[in-house]
Amino acid sequence: MSYDPNNIFAKILRGEAPSIKLFEDEHTYAMMDIMPQSEGHALILTKEPAANLFELSPEAAAHCIQSAQRLAKAIGKALAPDGVVVSQFNGAAAGQTVFHVHFHIVPRRAGEALRAHSREMADPAELEKVAARIRAALD
Amino acid sequence: MSYDPNNIFAKILRGEAPSIKLFEDEHTYAMMDIMPQSEGHALILTKEPAANLFELSPEAAAHCIQSAQRLAKAIGKALAPDGVVVSQFNGAAAGQTVFHVHFHIVPRRAGEALRAHSREMADPAELEKVAARIRAALD
Repeated sequence: MSYDPNNIFAKILRGEAPSIKLFEDEHTYAMMDIMPQSEGHALILTKEPAANLFELSPEAAAHCIQSAQRLAKAIGKALAPDGVVVSQFNGAAAGQTVFHVHFHIVPRRAGEALRAHSREMADPAELEKVAARIRAALD
Repeated sequence: MSYDPNNIFAKILRGEAPSIKLFEDEHTYAMMDIMPQSEGHALILTKEPAANLFELSPEAAAHCIQSAQRLAKAIGKALAPDGVVVSQFNGAAAGQTVFHVHFHIVPRRAGEALRAHSREMADPAELEKVAARIRAALD
């Protein structure tokens, strides 16, 4: 698959599209998912131009999962969910909707079903409130 | 959460329980999931005694995702699925059933629903056939 440099996440990384940012470092960018499957659903984007895990360098993959750990810990502290799912989709058949490598961090609560992925846009003001709690818990 | 050294994956890593192995290296162990959600569903286990991503060292997390890349590529070559999901569950509420860090590599095919997780044991002879194709495609 060829990488499209005009995908929405590439635009966010270039500052050409808005996002609710949590943190960034040299290799990754963390933000809220604007169509969350549960409260606190956040994303780690690689800064490498790669559509999927097959194209991503092993170094970039390592940076992604380490940022995912950092973010999952902050979400754990801030929101105290009962569990956390980390997932990464490759290909439309796998549920990938933006063809720039990203990892989902999805808090789970006992007895609560997930909302469908990429279905309903959340209120940005509500997302920002959750984001502020997560940022405050970042190490 | 305290780590239980007698969980089934720890036993597999010590050679005290059987598995359908795909490969191993210094830090990780790859094998077939015996209750596959789709044909080719495989797992990467860390060799670090850690129940979840919160306890896992960043180095071990990097080794896991890099082995997941290697395995996803082999599954892609061997089975040519339409997509691949990589997921990692933390806590029972997130779907974790064995409390030793592992990553799922789940091939997806267009129009095919996933089978429920940890519900039905597959025929080991059938799993071995799929495993042989994946092993042959490993770099």
